[in-house]
Amino acid sequence: MKPFVVAGGDAAGLSAASKCKRAAPDREVIVFEKGEWVSYAHCGTPYYVKGEVDGLTDLVSLSPADVAERGIDLRRGHEVTDVTEGSVTVVGPDGEFEQPYGDLLLATGAHAVQGPFDGLDRRGAFTLHGLPDAAAMRAFVDPDFDPATADIGPMDPERLRPLADAPVPETAAIVGGGYVGVELAEALSARGIEVHLFQRNEQLLPPFGAAIGDAVRAELNSEGVVVHTDTAVDSIAGGDRVERVEHADGTLDAEMAVVGVGIRPNTGLAEDAGATLGDSGAVAVDRYGRTDVEGVYAAGDCAEARHTVTGEPTWVPLGLTANRAGRAIGATVGGEPTPVGDVAGTAVVKAFEVSAGRAGFVGDESARAAGFEPVTETITAGSRSGYYPGAAETTVTLTADCGTGRVLGGSVVGTDRAAKRIDTLATALDAGHTVAELERLDLAYAPPFSPVWDPILVAAKVLAGRLE
Amino acid sequence: MKPFVVAGGDAAGLSAASKCKRAAPDREVIVFEKGEWVSYAHCGTPYYVKGEVDGLTDLVSLSPADVAERGIDLRRGHEVTDVTEGSVTVVGPDGEFEQPYGDLLLATGAHAVQGPFDGLDRRGAFTLHGLPDAAAMRAFVDPDFDPATADIGPMDPERLRPLADAPVPETAAIVGGGYVGVELAEALSARGIEVHLFQRNEQLLPPFGAAIGDAVRAELNSEGVVVHTDTAVDSIAGGDRVERVEHADGTLDAEMAVVGVGIRPNTGLAEDAGATLGDSGAVAVDRYGRTDVEGVYAAGDCAEARHTVTGEPTWVPLGLTANRAGRAIGATVGGEPTPVGDVAGTAVVKAFEVSAGRAGFVGDESARAAGFEPVTETITAGSRSGYYPGAAETTVTLTADCGTGRVLGGSVVGTDRAAKRIDTLATALDAGHTVAELERLDLAYAPPFSPVWDPILVAAKVLAGRLE
Repeated sequence: MKPFVVAGGDAAGLSAASKCKRAAPDREVIVFEKGEWVSYAHCGTPYYVKGEVDGLTDLVSLSPADVAERGIDLRRGHEVTDVTEGSVTVVGPDGEFEQPYGDLLLATGAHAVQGPFDGLDRRGAFTLHGLPDAAAMRAFVDPDFDPATADIGPMDPERLRPLADAPVPETAAIVGGGYVGVELAEALSARGIEVHLFQRNEQLLPPFGAAIGDAVRAELNSEGVVVHTDTAVDSIAGGDRVERVEHADGTLDAEMAVVGVGIRPNTGLAEDAGATLGDSGAVAVDRYGRTDVEGVYAAGDCAEARHTVTGEPTWVPLGLTANRAGRAIGATVGGEPTPVGDVAGTAVVKAFEVSAGRAGFVGDESARAAGFEPVTETITAGSRSGYYPGAAETTVTLTADCGTGRVLGGSVVGTDRAAKRIDTLATALDAGHTVAELERLDLAYAPPFSPVWDPILVAAKVLAGRLE
Repeated sequence: MKPFVVAGGDAAGLSAASKCKRAAPDREVIVFEKGEWVSYAHCGTPYYVKGEVDGLTDLVSLSPADVAERGIDLRRGHEVTDVTEGSVTVVGPDGEFEQPYGDLLLATGAHAVQGPFDGLDRRGAFTLHGLPDAAAMRAFVDPDFDPATADIGPMDPERLRPLADAPVPETAAIVGGGYVGVELAEALSARGIEVHLFQRNEQLLPPFGAAIGDAVRAELNSEGVVVHTDTAVDSIAGGDRVERVEHADGTLDAEMAVVGVGIRPNTGLAEDAGATLGDSGAVAVDRYGRTDVEGVYAAGDCAEARHTVTGEPTWVPLGLTANRAGRAIGATVGGEPTPVGDVAGTAVVKAFEVSAGRAGFVGDESARAAGFEPVTETITAGSRSGYYPGAAETTVTLTADCGTGRVLGGSVVGTDRAAKRIDTLATALDAGHTVAELERLDLAYAPPFSPVWDPILVAAKVLAGRLE
């Protein structure tokens, strides 16, 4: 049997390779990774910049040696450059070669959108996508960072030297109020940098809905981050170095600029292979992660997935989705057909002391666009019994379909263990629960952990009143 | 229309009364409560004894004035002593009278089992069930407690004076390793009292399963509580005051003894009414909380409920169940038929820094007794990404049925936000999810909150391997 070939050595790729090797130990599994790093945690990079995570290799789940021990033929510094029927073209340190495959997984990830900005080549301008970006940013903002002694894995210390030697910035402009922007606002503030966060539209974290956007904005403000909403940034200006950003309302002097305006799927190889892309721009796949090209799978940030609520394709590039789809594809390729699982768009984010989660459709607008007749309620309840120390306001937004009563999605935000409460809702979405069913769930109550009626139950009760 | 009469003014009774008044404002609603307190939080009493909750009235959700404002005719100091067709006998301060009813809710609660112990009449011997017990215990253990100035609501300070004047105990024996025992072990330790916890069998918190029993035992030990398992207590000995407890292995000198060996439903009125009791000993009810006597409902700690997993009657006397059933019955009586909801046996408990949750069937023994062919796995995973500060071991036990793959129950225990993770499982039980479905849930991941694979997903993955 020809080998199982994987293009991309991060979450989806190595999950698939590992699971295939466990399911079918005799199958040859080759993973080509164009970079130096494999199996690392994108989501941890803001905390590495902040310094809560000390070494860059702390973000690595599996070392190359771990991967080898699993019997996987991992080739770093090898880029898959073309796909033809039954074979891929690979460019490595020793030149180009053809590699036949029996099954092929495209796990090529995504890349940071650079936006319409001049100036990203100036020193002090960054995007944050992957460990090299994280190392560069840490070198620039951490006065104690010495490339010669820092834990930077296989990276060349000399590449980081100019950034480490440059003065630590006093002011940073962050362009984009999504995850990366919000998490870096916290990280850079913690380093004593004055942070200005620019968001083109009126709300931070748009997919999280208004209640979370407002709560996160208030928290950022209270921690000294200057939030500029409805404020487009036009350019990152300066000479060799960033000196200022020009924005709709004027100019901000800043020695650092971070562009975090989203990511786009890397679909070049899939297109070469002749695979169809979905409306989202990511690779279309079926319930088993198969593209419409025989023997070719796609998973992770480059691929679509099926939405829990609509059953339609969606693109929500997140860590669990990548790991889960990779693992399922590895099982399928290894002889145990396994669905990749649906995505509810479950996501959580932290901004200083505020934590927030969302799942499904949050608010009427997106739900209506998906063809529902939505009704939404937002309530505030306690995180614990009111008399118990540490109780804090928890705001829940819940959206349901008027016609069927089905829960469509919602959000939770607060300062006391709010984020993971979203898992209750994610599970209820998976079950297709109505608001009445949600309202009757037997959730856990004890004074240190929850009021008698968990905030999600309170929201369900109030929303049920609207549906009567 | 004859009034809606409620016997019992705590969670179930006042939830029903309030909801009925909202649904049918013109309906007369009368609540008879034999004691002085209404609408209070049983579950908060250990934290009042500990002193984390300052005043006794902090544990009250609704004051009598709040209740009156809702249009409810609340009569404290009135005990319903008999039920006949269409009428109850009530004994109040002004004597006995008959009160006709259209609908009747028996929300008579439960009482603490005293166990086969002599000596519960000695000073320093306590059970903990309700606010008067809590006030007595606080008076005895809090050196700063002054009955004249303490927030004790309608209670007579002079009744507490002898306990407040007695010396604070140096050593306390707690008989029973359930919720009350474990929570009071924490509370009394926090006051500097040497605590010995006696459990007749080998495991603390039996319904929570072995993993939680072991973790809680280890935590209690590490905090200086002396845990005596497999050790029956024979008597509470002394003169006017508790001086020692006699147990299977010897004698412990102690000035305080707490008996927390469980509660039993108060079913006398239901039996008077001719209602059938279930095998549990609590009042049998249907999906709407109706007993088998026309017009008579039962809810709260005196009533059974339907088990989420088996669909069979069960008795799990907890706060949310009482509130939820009361509210549903209030709606039904008010003209909006509403099921009371099933119970998954979801419960959470705190022991110092350890928190734990359970739902459904935990472990093979109880599941097999319910007719399943169970398989159980226990795993340990991180509470957050391993590199993120605060990550702590989280132990999950998951039980499923071999034949169907259906999840039957499980538990979660750890020191970092472990308890409320049980809500995911409670929701999955309600949905009737299989292990494969549980494994594919789109739960929330971000480094500060969870590893990529939430501990519950890790458990599902491992258990799925056993089911293949």
